[in-house]
Amino acid sequence: MKIAFIGGTGEEGMGLAYRFALAGHECIIGSRALEKAEGAVAELREKDGALPLRAAENAGAAAEGEIVVVTTPYAAQAPTLPPLADALAGKLVVSAVVPMAFEGGRASLIAVPEGSAAQQEQALLPQSTVVAAFQNLSARKLLKGAPIEADVVVCADDADAKQRIMKLAEAIEGVRGVDGGALANAQMVEGITVLLVAINRAYKTQAGVRIAGI
Amino acid sequence: MKIAFIGGTGEEGMGLAYRFALAGHECIIGSRALEKAEGAVAELREKDGALPLRAAENAGAAAEGEIVVVTTPYAAQAPTLPPLADALAGKLVVSAVVPMAFEGGRASLIAVPEGSAAQQEQALLPQSTVVAAFQNLSARKLLKGAPIEADVVVCADDADAKQRIMKLAEAIEGVRGVDGGALANAQMVEGITVLLVAINRAYKTQAGVRIAGI
Repeated sequence: MKIAFIGGTGEEGMGLAYRFALAGHECIIGSRALEKAEGAVAELREKDGALPLRAAENAGAAAEGEIVVVTTPYAAQAPTLPPLADALAGKLVVSAVVPMAFEGGRASLIAVPEGSAAQQEQALLPQSTVVAAFQNLSARKLLKGAPIEADVVVCADDADAKQRIMKLAEAIEGVRGVDGGALANAQMVEGITVLLVAINRAYKTQAGVRIAGI
Repeated sequence: MKIAFIGGTGEEGMGLAYRFALAGHECIIGSRALEKAEGAVAELREKDGALPLRAAENAGAAAEGEIVVVTTPYAAQAPTLPPLADALAGKLVVSAVVPMAFEGGRASLIAVPEGSAAQQEQALLPQSTVVAAFQNLSARKLLKGAPIEADVVVCADDADAKQRIMKLAEAIEGVRGVDGGALANAQMVEGITVLLVAINRAYKTQAGVRIAGI
């Protein structure tokens, strides 16, 4: 599977690309600037030179990816996505974006007019099928490469697309995909990331979330 | 410890009272109507006639409790608490309230002007120390009495009060108290309950949340 990342040069995008490449998926790291994407690919290749990774501008990544994961900062999503809407039409687009603000080391959830970053993404990409996932995975743990004790709660209005991403999540060792219901529930999943930041601060760790009893 | 419940006749209040009474705490179930509270106590006594449980009107419960847990529906919190503010002054008050709406079997999070139900509670009770906890525990599992595989994420601005409630949470067999940071983080914990409702619907279960990696 060709998996492309829009805004893939941050820790979360690089971490996911690393894990999906490790699982054998061809990953394309997109960025506004090609050199920045090339830098991210070079950095990941230091871990393993044989990883199936390539760099592209965001537009090229959007065109090439079969599944496209958005990992921009929240504030960059609204300006970045509309020019890519045609290239992303008919595709499965994953929102891993968290609308989070930091002040004095504390994180808070930004109120999104559409309800969640994922719903905003769907509004910006009306011809794509948006699935919300991966927001709660620690970027640092993704980049380390060891198994991750965490669930990926997947929210979508399209049941098939949701199942595909739940399965993709399990390409990351230790991770379980969990059906989180409709895309609107992404609001709560995005919020969990903000809570994990506080827990990480209290416990000096990189925590994840598990759903117990399913 | 005397633990009182404001609006304690719903499933969540009864479930928590049952567990705390099982752990030996003297529990006072409060309600607008004394007969309703007496009905809840009678129902719990059917499980175990020796449980240290009493019924009271909300005002009596607020006056008697050393720790007071608010388990009203969200919409009832704003009318119920202000008349109790003097009785609750100087006390540790726990918010287990979730601002949740149901439509067609689907739950959604109600936007609270103060940020969360817990912060609204603190605004309504300025002389009390509000701690947010217990929102994510399945009422049905609480009422069953078996060990519960779940964490209680506790949020508060007062570190000592937070520690007391984290410890109290562990009176429920299987449960672990987790430090969720400041009271403002209750917004995200309340949201988890809405997400768990969707997961329960998808998996036909009563799920809980665990924080992994701490």
